Amino acid sequence: MPESLTHLDSAGRARMVDVGGKAVTHRVAVASGTVSMKPETLELITAGEIAKGDVLAAARIAGIMAAKKTGELIPLCHPLGLDSVTVELEPAGPGVLGITATASVTGKTGVEMEALTAVSVAALTVYDMCKAADKDMVVGDIRLEAKSGGRSGDYRRQPS
Amino acid sequence: MPESLTHLDSAGRARMVDVGGKAVTHRVAVASGTVSMKPETLELITAGEIAKGDVLAAARIAGIMAAKKTGELIPLCHPLGLDSVTVELEPAGPGVLGITATASVTGKTGVEMEALTAVSVAALTVYDMCKAADKDMVVGDIRLEAKSGGRSGDYRRQPS
Amino acid sequence: MPESLTHLDSAGRARMVDVGGKAVTHRVAVASGTVSMKPETLELITAGEIAKGDVLAAARIAGIMAAKKTGELIPLCHPLGLDSVTVELEPAGPGVLGITATASVTGKTGVEMEALTAVSVAALTVYDMCKAADKDMVVGDIRLEAKSGGRSGDYRRQPS
Amino acid sequence: MPESLTHLDSAGRARMVDVGGKAVTHRVAVASGTVSMKPETLELITAGEIAKGDVLAAARIAGIMAAKKTGELIPLCHPLGLDSVTVELEPAGPGVLGITATASVTGKTGVEMEALTAVSVAALTVYDMCKAADKDMVVGDIRLEAKSGGRSGDYRRQPS
Amino acid sequence: MPESLTHLDSAGRARMVDVGGKAVTHRVAVASGTVSMKPETLELITAGEIAKGDVLAAARIAGIMAAKKTGELIPLCHPLGLDSVTVELEPAGPGVLGITATASVTGKTGVEMEALTAVSVAALTVYDMCKAADKDMVVGDIRLEAKSGGRSGDYRRQPS
Amino acid sequence: MPESLTHLDSAGRARMVDVGGKAVTHRVAVASGTVSMKPETLELITAGEIAKGDVLAAARIAGIMAAKKTGELIPLCHPLGLDSVTVELEPAGPGVLGITATASVTGKTGVEMEALTAVSVAALTVYDMCKAADKDMVVGDIRLEAKSGGRSGDYRRQPS
Repeated sequence: MPESLTHLDSAGRARMVDVGGKAVTHRVAVASGTVSMKPETLELITAGEIAKGDVLAAARIAGIMAAKKTGELIPLCHPLGLDSVTVELEPAGPGVLGITATASVTGKTGVEMEALTAVSVAALTVYDMCKAADKDMVVGDIRLEAKSGGRSGDYRRQPS
Repeated sequence: MPESLTHLDSAGRARMVDVGGKAVTHRVAVASGTVSMKPETLELITAGEIAKGDVLAAARIAGIMAAKKTGELIPLCHPLGLDSVTVELEPAGPGVLGITATASVTGKTGVEMEALTAVSVAALTVYDMCKAADKDMVVGDIRLEAKSGGRSGDYRRQPS
Repeated sequence: MPESLTHLDSAGRARMVDVGGKAVTHRVAVASGTVSMKPETLELITAGEIAKGDVLAAARIAGIMAAKKTGELIPLCHPLGLDSVTVELEPAGPGVLGITATASVTGKTGVEMEALTAVSVAALTVYDMCKAADKDMVVGDIRLEAKSGGRSGDYRRQPS
Repeated sequence: MPESLTHLDSAGRARMVDVGGKAVTHRVAVASGTVSMKPETLELITAGEIAKGDVLAAARIAGIMAAKKTGELIPLCHPLGLDSVTVELEPAGPGVLGITATASVTGKTGVEMEALTAVSVAALTVYDMCKAADKDMVVGDIRLEAKSGGRSGDYRRQPS
Repeated sequence: MPESLTHLDSAGRARMVDVGGKAVTHRVAVASGTVSMKPETLELITAGEIAKGDVLAAARIAGIMAAKKTGELIPLCHPLGLDSVTVELEPAGPGVLGITATASVTGKTGVEMEALTAVSVAALTVYDMCKAADKDMVVGDIRLEAKSGGRSGDYRRQPS
Repeated sequence: MPESLTHLDSAGRARMVDVGGKAVTHRVAVASGTVSMKPETLELITAGEIAKGDVLAAARIAGIMAAKKTGELIPLCHPLGLDSVTVELEPAGPGVLGITATASVTGKTGVEMEALTAVSVAALTVYDMCKAADKDMVVGDIRLEAKSGGRSGDYRRQPS
């Protein structure tokens, strides 16, 4: 069966892939994304110590907590006992806030979705906390950067 | 107090804005986003009737269910009793799947975050269901298209 | 559009029905169901004061808590602020435990699903707590008994 | 202590059974159930390609997602990292939709409740999506068909 | 029926009180609590700007998010659409961190439990983040300080 | 790095500690707490068979269910597959209800927070169910009594 169909049984019905026979290994995934905004919005976030601390702290915590909810949000994801999650937010250019999340597990299935979910919800939290100042913000470039530990071999995104 | 600080009290502490004094009005928000992938991945999704039905159906349902969880995911969002949520997924070019979500409520606070969350989780579901075929997919351009019904007036995104 | 299609838009896509234009009324729904088991299993439940209290108390609480989660479990259900939920469990014959749940809300949409979910999860809780003694138990006859308060008029199940 | 009391301590208080000393084995459970309805309701579901796709797809996804929430719904269930869940829905006679769910885990405790919860929530989703056309639908015959992998030996339901 | 029995029906069964007939009013509740620890633990929290920001920021956000989950945690609480939640953490003496939470709603039932839940989970978060340094911390004095807006009149705790 | 900073990276940012390298061991934690109330409120709870059963049963179940939600409530807690949870409630003096919770896991991280969360939510449930009779109740003395099984050695609280 082509690999692209692994979530689908013979009649096209969604199912959660059976990982019962897969090896328990240490798996890590890194995902990234951005929130693009007016440069002055990013300055508001990074300038004032108070405001900065809170927007970034809230986004980081929201991202970590969301990673733990991945199996609840994504229909066919396996519920996982994560070993770790980190979420970093850093200015990545004028009006661009970069977000990187790393998740790891000792288990039978990868943690790409956990890392991607952490980035997405951290980004949405930034949007929520700054939308009164800037409704034009755009969340983008959410992608897998690297993963390791699975049967299909390590993956590292090629520079585009 | 500048509008950009409405989530922060005088010492920079996160808080949920008090909407107790705001009017109950009918509020609508529309958000959009994309999943960029190899053209053949999109063809896999849209070609086979079975596969198509399932990926898009799962993403749509995941987006709707996620909209209902917005207040649980985004720390300072108010819990809302939504009137409606719709999520549409349509090819928007070679290797680009477009996603649009519309949320509405009769309440004291807007539903931008609900629409944005629906788009984000629908996109992550597409990623999850197709990642075996294409790990390079990118979720992007998640943004508010329009909102109406709030005190601050209607908003419509300017073409960029 | 035929009433049976109200959850489907023109292309058959699932959506949450828009209740924005519906009237806020007081709505009540009653649902029922049964757990069939060996008569001695039911006796174990009802005999010992301690054991009885616990199985029935746990099922009752699980049913009430599940009613509050209905919008999270059923994809197209609206999230609701319930006014009340009650769950009753009573022997209804040899080896038959009857369950009745009543839910009410002051809102724009009915609470049938909340009452049915309360019955279902209360029944599953009975199964879980007694399955070591009786794996052959069957949960059945889960149905809407009555509803009132909606636009479509009151409903009362006809005796079959 | 009689097996039927394993959820109860000496004073009848509910507790989550300690599985700390149980072996980690591969465990599978199969559960089934039905939704009985007017034959024309079932035809509405199965006839139109669009409608069919969506009701069954939504129910299947809702069932899978609910299996992952079993530990949250059933008070004394252990939280589990499921290996797989599948939910099948097929016509099983005039006006009868059959539902079968299979769950598996590599763990210390069985997955009967996960399979039963998947069936129950899939059935409730069918009810929700069709109730505008047919309020008399009945969810029934929810039962364990088979389980394997536990200390107490394999179980297979006897034909009744 | 004596007021103390309002959660119990005639047979002592738990039920969610019916608030269908209660007036929608603006309701506010304030709760407080403490975390007692070694003075040097509190200094670790309050001294370093970075550490301080994070422990207190995490506890504040955890408290706000928990307030939104009150109806999910406390079996007989009504689900509520909160108007606001704030959580404050401030040193209240040597080795004592004081926590105060305020919740408000425009609804039919009070928000005492939401304020108390916010305090409790904020306190547990402080414990979690500092327990490597000080396992002897004690969470205490969690109590309602004041409430207003309900039928039973305003309440203000008497100094003890 | 001082042990007190283990949740903080070099820039003070919250993160979930990486337990990937920790040993899987059997871990147990015991926590306790109290609800102080008017002696007559405690008598109301313990006297009537019906009332007694329900308040304590509801609190016990709420505590067990909350233990399973610890990873969802406390931002930096790891999600865990618990082996067992028990919650006991017993009068501990005039107007004092004592609560003890024990949690265990076979895993890489301790279950202190699960035991403490169970105690806290059981206590809040008592408050909720009795608050109509006694708003002055105080939840207090929530603390870790003992833990075993971790790398840092066993812990037993010293009598104060």
